[in-house]
Amino acid sequence: MRLSQFHLRTEKETPAEAEIASHKLMLKAGMVRKLAAGLYTWSPLGLRVLRKVEAVVREEMDSAGAIEMAMPSVQPRELWEETGRWQKFGPQLLKIRDRKEQEYCFTPTAEEAVTDFFRHECASYRQLPVNFYQVTTKFRDEIRPRFGVMRAREFVMKDAYSFHVSDEDLIERGYNVMYAAYERIFTRLGLAYRAVAADTGAIGGSASHEFHVLAESGEDALAFSEGSGYAANVELAEAVSPGERPAPSETLRTVDTPVQKTCEDVAALLGIPLARTVKSVAAMGADGFVLALVRGDHVVNEIKLSKLPGMAEYRLATEAEIVDHLGCEPGFLGPRGPRKAIRVVADRSVAAMADFVIGANAPGAHLAGVNWGRDLPEPDVVADIRNVVAGDPSPDGQGVLGLARGIEVGHVFALGRRYSEAMGCTVLDEHGKAVHPAMGCYGIGVSRIVAAAIEQNHDAAGIRWPEAMAPWRAVVCVINPKGNAEVAAAADALYRELTSAGVDTALDDRGLRPGSMFADIELIGIPHRVVVSERGLAAGTFEYRARTATESEQLDRATLLARLSGG
Amino acid sequence: MRLSQFHLRTEKETPAEAEIASHKLMLKAGMVRKLAAGLYTWSPLGLRVLRKVEAVVREEMDSAGAIEMAMPSVQPRELWEETGRWQKFGPQLLKIRDRKEQEYCFTPTAEEAVTDFFRHECASYRQLPVNFYQVTTKFRDEIRPRFGVMRAREFVMKDAYSFHVSDEDLIERGYNVMYAAYERIFTRLGLAYRAVAADTGAIGGSASHEFHVLAESGEDALAFSEGSGYAANVELAEAVSPGERPAPSETLRTVDTPVQKTCEDVAALLGIPLARTVKSVAAMGADGFVLALVRGDHVVNEIKLSKLPGMAEYRLATEAEIVDHLGCEPGFLGPRGPRKAIRVVADRSVAAMADFVIGANAPGAHLAGVNWGRDLPEPDVVADIRNVVAGDPSPDGQGVLGLARGIEVGHVFALGRRYSEAMGCTVLDEHGKAVHPAMGCYGIGVSRIVAAAIEQNHDAAGIRWPEAMAPWRAVVCVINPKGNAEVAAAADALYRELTSAGVDTALDDRGLRPGSMFADIELIGIPHRVVVSERGLAAGTFEYRARTATESEQLDRATLLARLSGG
Repeated sequence: MRLSQFHLRTEKETPAEAEIASHKLMLKAGMVRKLAAGLYTWSPLGLRVLRKVEAVVREEMDSAGAIEMAMPSVQPRELWEETGRWQKFGPQLLKIRDRKEQEYCFTPTAEEAVTDFFRHECASYRQLPVNFYQVTTKFRDEIRPRFGVMRAREFVMKDAYSFHVSDEDLIERGYNVMYAAYERIFTRLGLAYRAVAADTGAIGGSASHEFHVLAESGEDALAFSEGSGYAANVELAEAVSPGERPAPSETLRTVDTPVQKTCEDVAALLGIPLARTVKSVAAMGADGFVLALVRGDHVVNEIKLSKLPGMAEYRLATEAEIVDHLGCEPGFLGPRGPRKAIRVVADRSVAAMADFVIGANAPGAHLAGVNWGRDLPEPDVVADIRNVVAGDPSPDGQGVLGLARGIEVGHVFALGRRYSEAMGCTVLDEHGKAVHPAMGCYGIGVSRIVAAAIEQNHDAAGIRWPEAMAPWRAVVCVINPKGNAEVAAAADALYRELTSAGVDTALDDRGLRPGSMFADIELIGIPHRVVVSERGLAAGTFEYRARTATESEQLDRATLLARLSGG
Repeated sequence: MRLSQFHLRTEKETPAEAEIASHKLMLKAGMVRKLAAGLYTWSPLGLRVLRKVEAVVREEMDSAGAIEMAMPSVQPRELWEETGRWQKFGPQLLKIRDRKEQEYCFTPTAEEAVTDFFRHECASYRQLPVNFYQVTTKFRDEIRPRFGVMRAREFVMKDAYSFHVSDEDLIERGYNVMYAAYERIFTRLGLAYRAVAADTGAIGGSASHEFHVLAESGEDALAFSEGSGYAANVELAEAVSPGERPAPSETLRTVDTPVQKTCEDVAALLGIPLARTVKSVAAMGADGFVLALVRGDHVVNEIKLSKLPGMAEYRLATEAEIVDHLGCEPGFLGPRGPRKAIRVVADRSVAAMADFVIGANAPGAHLAGVNWGRDLPEPDVVADIRNVVAGDPSPDGQGVLGLARGIEVGHVFALGRRYSEAMGCTVLDEHGKAVHPAMGCYGIGVSRIVAAAIEQNHDAAGIRWPEAMAPWRAVVCVINPKGNAEVAAAADALYRELTSAGVDTALDDRGLRPGSMFADIELIGIPHRVVVSERGLAAGTFEYRARTATESEQLDRATLLARLSGG
């Protein structure tokens, strides 16, 4: 591609609206332009990158035996009613009413549509397993779209759905095959990623892994053991049981904490470690008021809490409810006192504490030297309800956990029969009996990958694309193309030669001054830059610089070609 | 592709819901499946064809210098308000309200979005001309979606938009370049097509051509001269002025036509040619009641009629309005009588008639021997308001017109400055003056092409794909793959060899009986079929048959490879 024939428009200023690096750089590089909240136009430059990601995804899906098809963006309400998701999906489902007042949605995912396709197209176990996928535009009506294409409302997703006669087949020939394909996809894209066990959520499938691009700006916390292959989203990672509870050694006493409402403030006042305090979180479950207790240095894990009996749809208690049940405003709450209509759920680590500090359920007061059994009844429930922290023992017993942050770009999910049962979808098994097929679903956020790759690969000058995702692998920069016909011709010849050799190359023949041209090329992140200049021609060399290198090299033609063709 | 690994599902029965050949065959071949009215899932087989069309379109757009990008499907109301199209587009515009009660539409076309992109991205004449295109899903909320993907609500369209500093540049480097690219696209796709001059409609651009795939089932009538390059949509084709009006030779008389309400019936009763009768069509224009007259053998052209002063938004008159103005019910209407508040608009050919027959504005009566001037005043307006018919002189004076039917699959349109002016989009010209760029827009109905190609290319057995659009160019059919390992291996080797030679080939290793297998292959329309059988192997030959041939041939390996690689 000759850049004089392309549309490239970079910005010098960093856009004020952007908060994270990828959003800033995509706007500065002119890859996307905002049309409205969460809606982005992909410029020619941005689309080149998006298409490269799509191509890798398609190749690996095809080679894994998945079959591409395409379902409509607009889908009828009746279909979504079959599974109850018309209501359950919530306000992220963009609902549409057509000219005849019929209701539709802009599809955020296609389990219903693919199950409908399958139930009409497949009738026998002989047609299974089968895995249908599509790469299409999806929509989620995010309440706060942000971070550019990272959390846009309209986005490109690859979604695949496999059908199987048995759970074993689902895992062996569906889930595991897709898992391996995803590993190949993210490896080929040149991304540092990690697959982590994930929560199966309300759908309740049997297995689920998320694929995360590792980046400090990632919204997800991941836990993994250096000593084993264990890796899980912090949402799911088990905080293993601590040791035995020590014997009490202090006496119960009330301490004045006039303005100290947080565990941190109380620990500082008392001069004790934060780990000696207990945090009380008030919630309302199906059976009423719940006080959830975690150590002061821990954080309640909402997913774990919601899995306890009666807590599936819990919410935080209101201040009025707290006052009603504990007789005290938030800041000084604790599990000691009249237990009227209160259920105490203690994290395992809290249940193993002695001589700890809790709120006194009285303004300006905490209790210290508290001990289970002696000063208050044992907790009603002891469970794992906290996030793991770095240094926790790995749940598989091997090593300790480390934490990392990630951006979720893929998800494989063994759904089971939730959709096939709800939609009355059956096939005849080998005995002629109608059975509901087991299903898997497998998503990749294609447009999100573009942003995630930038979060992981950039520097002060701009983007540093992995080779497989770069808009072009190499660029040939011409110094003063109009002023020196010989230089222009040599650059053109090199450009043609590289292109013929299969190197996706751009020719920067725009005639910019070298400084502006190089700044553009670094900003848009081309991995390999070659400069053709009068001086170089005289010496018989080209100036070469990798985007990741700090110095240029002078290479002769043969060395340069070998270097670039090798990738 | 091994068909045992693919998802192919053909139907034996012709679906009752389908009216036209392409819809029937796409359903029978399992290319698409209806999800809801006007919404279709593209099966793996259908998608292969769609993608082949997309690829040809992209290659030719790229080689014509257009630059691909992608705009959102969901676009904000504010953008469409800028040009007034939020209202003007009418009920085909699918309007959406998000969770925040903001209004959007599912884009049917993207003039506003691309002009918005352009006005932010381009500021100088130096960046022009530029032509942006996208291949994306569009939506038109058709009141009566039908004929499958031919007139679906959701469809795939390639839309391109070019920007120019002058009208000359728009025509020379925009319109003409796209026109030539479209010719290459439809030629490469192997379709019999015709480009015809088209109406520029309400948008009022300076030039417009439609590209039609010729097919008897086409909804559009096209007129073209065998004696010249003249071709136009019948909507637009001029019916040239006839000769002088002859002198009257008959006397005016009333004839009894008790039940004869149509020109055909009256002509039959009187034993005269239909061309001697005059049809009166009652309409309401901006200035009141209009009686439009065409010859009995002609048809009123609504587009031409609507271009007359005061007729831009005309409608047919109601029966009550007719009775009110003419004192008679439909069936016996005519221009003679009290002309109170009636405007008579005569087609040129009617104005040139003598001794003609009209309704008498009285039940059961017509007037014969009618003559302008003598029996009734001259028409208020004489204009071209009819469709041309076969045999009419060509408007360019060369030869006579023939008629054909076509399916519109492409449209090039010199828009001018309607959008750039409405949206305040300017660039600086070479004198530093802000000017509104002239725009062109260029659409191709990618998914409709698939259906149109079938309308043009099918027989009783199924589809006959042009090579460039076929899901596979060739298929290797294996007789009894499980029963004969040698045959299976030979077929596999041939399949690999063809694939290596760049022939997009399927291997039909499904193990069907020959009859069912061949019926499938003919139905889905693969251009080249090769059968590998025990008998053939023994003789050292393969059975080859082109989809368009009636007989098979026995070819040796070398001849077969040469035949298939040649395409």
